[in-house]
Amino acid sequence: MPTLLSHSSKASLRGLGLGFPGLSQPAAISSCSPNRSFSLGRGKDTRKERVVILGSGWAGYGFARTLDPAKYERVIVSPRSYFVFTPLLASTSVGTLEFRTILEPVRRLSGIGFYQGWADAIDFDRKTIRVETNAAEEVASKTVVPAPATGATQAVTAPPKPKGDLIDIPYDKLVIACGAYSQTFGIEGVREHAHFLRDIGDARRIRLRVLSLFEQCSYPRGTDRLSDADKRQLLHFAIVGGGPTGIEFAAELNDLIRDDLAPMYPDLMPFVSITVYDVAPKVLPMFDQALAKYAMDTFARQNIKVKTEHHLQRLRLADGNLGQRHGALKIKIRELGEQEVGAGLVVWSTGLMANPLIAKLAALELAAPGPNPVASQSTPRHLLRDARTGGIVTDAHLRALTETKDTAATRGILEDVYVIGDCAVMENDPALPKTAQVASQQAAHLAKRLNSGGAAAVAAKPFRFRNWGTLTYLGSWKAIHQSQADELRGWVAWVVWRGAYLTKSMSWRNKLLVPVYWVVSWLFGRGISRF
Amino acid sequence: MPTLLSHSSKASLRGLGLGFPGLSQPAAISSCSPNRSFSLGRGKDTRKERVVILGSGWAGYGFARTLDPAKYERVIVSPRSYFVFTPLLASTSVGTLEFRTILEPVRRLSGIGFYQGWADAIDFDRKTIRVETNAAEEVASKTVVPAPATGATQAVTAPPKPKGDLIDIPYDKLVIACGAYSQTFGIEGVREHAHFLRDIGDARRIRLRVLSLFEQCSYPRGTDRLSDADKRQLLHFAIVGGGPTGIEFAAELNDLIRDDLAPMYPDLMPFVSITVYDVAPKVLPMFDQALAKYAMDTFARQNIKVKTEHHLQRLRLADGNLGQRHGALKIKIRELGEQEVGAGLVVWSTGLMANPLIAKLAALELAAPGPNPVASQSTPRHLLRDARTGGIVTDAHLRALTETKDTAATRGILEDVYVIGDCAVMENDPALPKTAQVASQQAAHLAKRLNSGGAAAVAAKPFRFRNWGTLTYLGSWKAIHQSQADELRGWVAWVVWRGAYLTKSMSWRNKLLVPVYWVVSWLFGRGISRF
Repeated sequence: MPTLLSHSSKASLRGLGLGFPGLSQPAAISSCSPNRSFSLGRGKDTRKERVVILGSGWAGYGFARTLDPAKYERVIVSPRSYFVFTPLLASTSVGTLEFRTILEPVRRLSGIGFYQGWADAIDFDRKTIRVETNAAEEVASKTVVPAPATGATQAVTAPPKPKGDLIDIPYDKLVIACGAYSQTFGIEGVREHAHFLRDIGDARRIRLRVLSLFEQCSYPRGTDRLSDADKRQLLHFAIVGGGPTGIEFAAELNDLIRDDLAPMYPDLMPFVSITVYDVAPKVLPMFDQALAKYAMDTFARQNIKVKTEHHLQRLRLADGNLGQRHGALKIKIRELGEQEVGAGLVVWSTGLMANPLIAKLAALELAAPGPNPVASQSTPRHLLRDARTGGIVTDAHLRALTETKDTAATRGILEDVYVIGDCAVMENDPALPKTAQVASQQAAHLAKRLNSGGAAAVAAKPFRFRNWGTLTYLGSWKAIHQSQADELRGWVAWVVWRGAYLTKSMSWRNKLLVPVYWVVSWLFGRGISRF
Repeated sequence: MPTLLSHSSKASLRGLGLGFPGLSQPAAISSCSPNRSFSLGRGKDTRKERVVILGSGWAGYGFARTLDPAKYERVIVSPRSYFVFTPLLASTSVGTLEFRTILEPVRRLSGIGFYQGWADAIDFDRKTIRVETNAAEEVASKTVVPAPATGATQAVTAPPKPKGDLIDIPYDKLVIACGAYSQTFGIEGVREHAHFLRDIGDARRIRLRVLSLFEQCSYPRGTDRLSDADKRQLLHFAIVGGGPTGIEFAAELNDLIRDDLAPMYPDLMPFVSITVYDVAPKVLPMFDQALAKYAMDTFARQNIKVKTEHHLQRLRLADGNLGQRHGALKIKIRELGEQEVGAGLVVWSTGLMANPLIAKLAALELAAPGPNPVASQSTPRHLLRDARTGGIVTDAHLRALTETKDTAATRGILEDVYVIGDCAVMENDPALPKTAQVASQQAAHLAKRLNSGGAAAVAAKPFRFRNWGTLTYLGSWKAIHQSQADELRGWVAWVVWRGAYLTKSMSWRNKLLVPVYWVVSWLFGRGISRF
């Protein structure tokens, strides 16, 4: 593979700390292959093209599942060793389902190549990814919220010191599906004190926290005396963000408390409350007025409070013992002035922000396309980044776009690089939501096109999104569903909801275990052991 | 409840730091009751006797399950919020079973009173237990090995600063079932670096460690180059202790590697090895020669090495990157001289030592029995502790014995205090093994006697142990079973083994889930997701 880097772009890569020091050459393909199914020792002409996929979420895992292993060598690079079936994450956080029933280990894909780690840098010209490895058993499976950078450039010029080993993975085709991060709007204390609900470790931490709070409030008064007011604070569960994730978590939490915890801690029930906060005038904006009202009526009957047009300004640990020993939080809300609201748990679910890797990649200077890269040396070319969301802009075929900074700001295609899922912004449809549905449709489309005829087949047919509608669980066996074709509510929606989830994207193992757990939890109660 | 403490015993309690400072009075029963089923506000004559149980293992949980809630108020004090079905712990550590399928949450016992925490001290005269609470969600469910004390007195006079809140729990009858700790023989580095396999958190850590080691060895060479020799060290799994626990873990680990990890990491298989070390000349001492030989032949066929008469002298982290980044260990063995053996994981399973609480309790000076406690003030009376094992000595009825330090060293009974399980040593049968079988039979016996007529019924019939035999799983669907009546081996033993476990001590939830997981793991492989 000849080095395509021009002198100036090499220099700029080094300036950004992306010059891949330490390894003089990217590892040859044969030295990177831990798996028998890799085609070792053959010449380039006969071996299968290597498709490297960054990410193992709805986009990355869905793509890898669909891509034909007979035609391509598939390699996933992801900090997580599994795919999470996110629609059921809230169910695992309250013990209705066991955590592992919604996970699909990447290595269960037959013949897959897998490197657990973060893509730290990509050399598009030499078609090599530098990966920071991450296989220590302490790995937390926890949502990472990047520390706020004082400016975008700082994040690029001063990357954090790598903790893992660094390895280089070459590719023939690259699929960027590294998703997005949780959006905190830089609000003080959210990164440190809020719980997120995007990964399995988050769900585990939330389950432990909820159960622990009840246990902590159940002791008689000891040397450290919890007053009734203290218990009221600790057993206040605050959810910030009134989208489907926040609403479903509130509903599932309420089910857990009513069905399982109330019989065990009857004396604590008067102190329990659940509140959903949102800045918008109404929650569940994707549902029409009637369904949203039905949701609010259902919540009101279950005594879940919904506070719209509330702006959270700060989250901090409560003073004294209540904060230090019990982890109580204080929420400052603009509409309530100086009076803070106490809570034992704050679940944060307000949307997504771009993965910091994207800014890093967009800052790279790319070699010019075509047979003579030196020719256009004077006109720098970059990956095109969406100014509003920070994602990578793609064409209608999910190919990464570039911009050459000449007078016309010419757009082009970055050969062999595709972007799908939450980190992609489609040029022709920039308003596509960042949902599992979009990501999995993009993944399936791209993989099928590549299966049917490689890059030419991708170019032959654009991606088109089909809206299957939105479903939200409301607790007490009720849900609402809305699509262009129909509207459903009540237990009918619940049956549709559960049925639809079962048949989508799950392995047979989990297709079997999820209904088993539904029955077991219904018969014997949810999983409440704490460890 | 009048204070029975004599002046001198009060002073001695204070001198030991057990004078319960901070709370001027033990909390009244009514202020301690978090549960509606407790009998509040009634006079002492009409309310049910409160039986407080220290511990939630085979002894404590088994006792609480059997004690009649219509006749007694049951309160469990335990640092763990669940009972662990220990015979299946090794199966959870390799992903054959899900962790929660072998846990029974204490609070699922209807009408139970539960305080999560450690008994820190007991005032036998005032019938009150001081408990250090432990309900934080960080609770590790991990085997605790107490730091070695330079002398027995140090552990008593300088108790560690309590981290939790302190609460006082009064009792009418007390059942001490707080178990034993892992025995490390004070060998350097074992506490810090070895894994134990006694609690669910231990099983979780072992599973994460095993899977992580394979992942760490699967990368291509990066900036930090793992040589083949390094991989051979990291993928060496050492088990110290050739009793049933160690042997079963080795067998289950071998099943996991052969069935699930070999297809995923074929290139790593030449580096994998499993070794069981024991100081004795033969492993599985409770089995007769023929069955033990069968076990060794089965292991030999599976390439599990068994090294008897090997004395481990030190465990330490390997030097450099291999230790710091990959957690590799170095084992020093007397028989091998200065040459240390490398390992990625050391599982320690060499037996039990007394719970430090026992030494603390035995050091307490008790009030004299009888109507006039002041009379025998000059003859100090203590709980009787077994010199060899450190347990509390009981009579044949499981009642705690005391010794009065007069010329004859008179033994007596400590009224209303019973001791069962690993922390009890029966005066008439001190060689009873510290097993789940003994603990659960003692628990059932004591609870049934109390149900049938209180203390008088306990005194009427001594405990008698019935040996049901011993079962050990050997991997590859094989097991050995030995009892007085029969000997079984091969798959027949395996069927008996699995069948026997299913019907014993489990809730219906787990009776259902365990076979489901056996089938699912057999059909689709074990749980290998890492989080």
